[in-house]
Amino acid sequence: MMGKKLTSRAEDYSKWYNELVVKADLAENSGVRGCMVIKPYGYAIWEKMQAALDKMFKDTGHENAYFPLFIPKSYLSKEASHVEGFAKECAVVTHYRLKNAEDGSGIVVDEDAKLEEELIVRPTSETIIWDTYRKWIQSYRDLPLLINQWANVVRWEMRTRLFLRTAEFLWQEGHTAHATEKEALEEAEQMMHVYADFAENHMAVPVIKGTKTESERFAGAVETFCIEALMQDGKALQAGTSHFLGQNFAKAFDVKYATKEGKQDFVWATSWGVSTRLMGALIMTHSDDNGLVLPPKLAPIQVVIVPIYKGMEQLEAISEKVKPLVGELRSKGISVKYDNRDTHKPGFKFNEYELKGVPVRLAIGQRDMENGTFEVARRDTLEKETVPAEEVVQKIEGLLEDIQVQLYQKASSYQQENITQVETYDEFKKVLEEKGGFVSAHWDGTMATEDRIKEETKATIRCIPIAVKNEEGTCVVTGKPSPYRVLFAKAY
Amino acid sequence: MMGKKLTSRAEDYSKWYNELVVKADLAENSGVRGCMVIKPYGYAIWEKMQAALDKMFKDTGHENAYFPLFIPKSYLSKEASHVEGFAKECAVVTHYRLKNAEDGSGIVVDEDAKLEEELIVRPTSETIIWDTYRKWIQSYRDLPLLINQWANVVRWEMRTRLFLRTAEFLWQEGHTAHATEKEALEEAEQMMHVYADFAENHMAVPVIKGTKTESERFAGAVETFCIEALMQDGKALQAGTSHFLGQNFAKAFDVKYATKEGKQDFVWATSWGVSTRLMGALIMTHSDDNGLVLPPKLAPIQVVIVPIYKGMEQLEAISEKVKPLVGELRSKGISVKYDNRDTHKPGFKFNEYELKGVPVRLAIGQRDMENGTFEVARRDTLEKETVPAEEVVQKIEGLLEDIQVQLYQKASSYQQENITQVETYDEFKKVLEEKGGFVSAHWDGTMATEDRIKEETKATIRCIPIAVKNEEGTCVVTGKPSPYRVLFAKAY
Repeated sequence: MMGKKLTSRAEDYSKWYNELVVKADLAENSGVRGCMVIKPYGYAIWEKMQAALDKMFKDTGHENAYFPLFIPKSYLSKEASHVEGFAKECAVVTHYRLKNAEDGSGIVVDEDAKLEEELIVRPTSETIIWDTYRKWIQSYRDLPLLINQWANVVRWEMRTRLFLRTAEFLWQEGHTAHATEKEALEEAEQMMHVYADFAENHMAVPVIKGTKTESERFAGAVETFCIEALMQDGKALQAGTSHFLGQNFAKAFDVKYATKEGKQDFVWATSWGVSTRLMGALIMTHSDDNGLVLPPKLAPIQVVIVPIYKGMEQLEAISEKVKPLVGELRSKGISVKYDNRDTHKPGFKFNEYELKGVPVRLAIGQRDMENGTFEVARRDTLEKETVPAEEVVQKIEGLLEDIQVQLYQKASSYQQENITQVETYDEFKKVLEEKGGFVSAHWDGTMATEDRIKEETKATIRCIPIAVKNEEGTCVVTGKPSPYRVLFAKAY
Repeated sequence: MMGKKLTSRAEDYSKWYNELVVKADLAENSGVRGCMVIKPYGYAIWEKMQAALDKMFKDTGHENAYFPLFIPKSYLSKEASHVEGFAKECAVVTHYRLKNAEDGSGIVVDEDAKLEEELIVRPTSETIIWDTYRKWIQSYRDLPLLINQWANVVRWEMRTRLFLRTAEFLWQEGHTAHATEKEALEEAEQMMHVYADFAENHMAVPVIKGTKTESERFAGAVETFCIEALMQDGKALQAGTSHFLGQNFAKAFDVKYATKEGKQDFVWATSWGVSTRLMGALIMTHSDDNGLVLPPKLAPIQVVIVPIYKGMEQLEAISEKVKPLVGELRSKGISVKYDNRDTHKPGFKFNEYELKGVPVRLAIGQRDMENGTFEVARRDTLEKETVPAEEVVQKIEGLLEDIQVQLYQKASSYQQENITQVETYDEFKKVLEEKGGFVSAHWDGTMATEDRIKEETKATIRCIPIAVKNEEGTCVVTGKPSPYRVLFAKAY
């Protein structure tokens, strides 16, 4: 299962990623084109992400609900720009029964069981949800409506990669309804901050908050807020988006409410989501040529203890020594695994937990037993030290905190070093080609220039940063005036 | 939203159920035929069920994972009896793209984007999972494989009812692989006990554990274990099933392992599941003509506090009095809502929380403020009493425990009173018609007799109880010998 070493990042970054995802038991491709299997170890990380996000959503007043997997074809058409964005690549259900083939060759679609209207497997749920909200919202008393859904969605992607782009993926989608434009805008912005908080404080992934240009905006949105992260190969990754939808969906689905003054008005909306794509961001931000590196807050196993022994007598003595330590760590909420399998050697186990990114590894052998010590290793720096048994709990607690902080700081330094200001288009292209990362440049604000840059360099505008500085300048391509810099990058 | 009173159970049990589900804000029908929307209050109950079950699964050594939504048509055919059971009513994906109609009439299916092989939206995941397990299992060291999945599934039911029978529903499905027949059988039986434990100790729903007859068995199983509950209208409801699959799926998907002795052998399997159908069982077991009744362990709001006041000054004084109580209850892990909305009168709020089944309601008005008391009401018996403020926390803790126990005992007495032993087919039909419930009868063990009884009375064999007493007798229909009684009932 472990096989030979990983391809190194320098050798082939893309291959390194694909190998790592499979070898660290995170996910693998299934027999269904473009659909992945999320393996138990990968799913355990996703569960930790879900738990943290779900708490943040609830703490900001949201409730969970569940809406249908299927969307009638006609619903998609109701919001004009939405259908353009989502009707293209989707799974279409046309029949509701199979039958035995008359020639005995197996089972075939029963043509008598054709649906009157085709159903689309949801690529996102605005339409089915707003069709429901029409029934739920009558008066200002019913607002705000703050709902989230954890669900699977399907977008028929032609080129797929585990976690980053798959036909089916898991996500959450928030859908809120408000009485005023201001409140909806604040909600959309709040959720961008919630996502950034999660990315930085749980995933240890620094992100840049910003808004999307018109061409990168969600289909049906008036404004899209986003968080953008930077991977180790210099490519950006959109880690979460939050959309201010204006009254577009309320108008498309006729969702009005009676104001306090008794007038009828359309409702204001937001939607926001993050997906299993975050797994890709997590993996690519921290991991190294030895395998996965996980921030302690999201690690399914935070501490692993490996006994080094000859014969059952030594193993039993070690196990006796380890048992109270395991108990004490667990009582402090630290997840710990004591790997006493006698089918694998310590070296094999060391490699396995390194590959799987367990933040702290303890080893204990005969010399440690005699000296009353443990060997303590941290996954991020691979540093090892010998620690007296009576200090080991405190040491572990400190390490878990320190690793969480250090991972963030390392990624943050990398991000800052890879935001490059350029003044000319030549410089723009040179930086993009030779250094990568975010290119901070003046742009004339037109879609034409944005398209030309994308065509010529493959770079897109990742965002107009929220923390933008007003700074008059001229577009690197057209020389026309520009009020501030925007961030370009090649992206996942 | 509250509207007029519920239809009573005596008047029309089925209508009572449908109204209650909608009026208590649990679920409603969507614009997609047969698919429900689970509303926030209903979903909050489901989340509590999930959390409790998930912990029980993990405590018994299982891990979660995620497998694709879609199943290639050919996979379904690989296990002969499985395809017979599941190919009939399923959603079939035939295309992967929509396009604008040439006549401008809207969007239509793009016939150029037809799948080479149709995909089935999973009705259950044995086939896709066993196709994956072939890659995961090589040796006895890889066993047992103990995996669970939380997912949505689709079965194209023609007649649907909220929670009880819907085209799409949410569930969990466990899929385990074992080296020996004995171990797999023990696993299947263990999960039946886990389900019974959950039903009885969390849902307060007494169940009868048993095995299914051949005709009621899961398609592809060698043995199906089940838990059966009894609803207030005398109909049974299958609340969970656990299947011993023998080597059927291992053989269909060629999943072999190397034994310790180095031989190749097929793997032994189980699968087991419970679904949002449990919501239906929960609702129908405890609720009354005033609305929902919830066991405290699954109630999203365990205690609601309603202030009775005139003017803001009185409200503020009450709020000040209530605040530390709310804090104290929360610190004890009790979920409490203080409903100080000034848009609704206390009477409206009382009705609302009664309808929604909040186990304990506190009210506090001017007289209580003067006397230092609260009015405490319990939802199950509707009893009220006045309690001194200093005793109210203890009172609430006691009530929450007592309601949980009383609900179970009441349902348990009802169940026991409604298991009727009969000796003749006339008696059988009379009891079924006039009393309902479980009919305990001798049966000759043949499918022909079982079919005849079903046709003539609509009753099916719910289970052969695990706690069966060996008792020689004769079949009520054919007079042939029978070794023990089985339980018949009309069922949901």
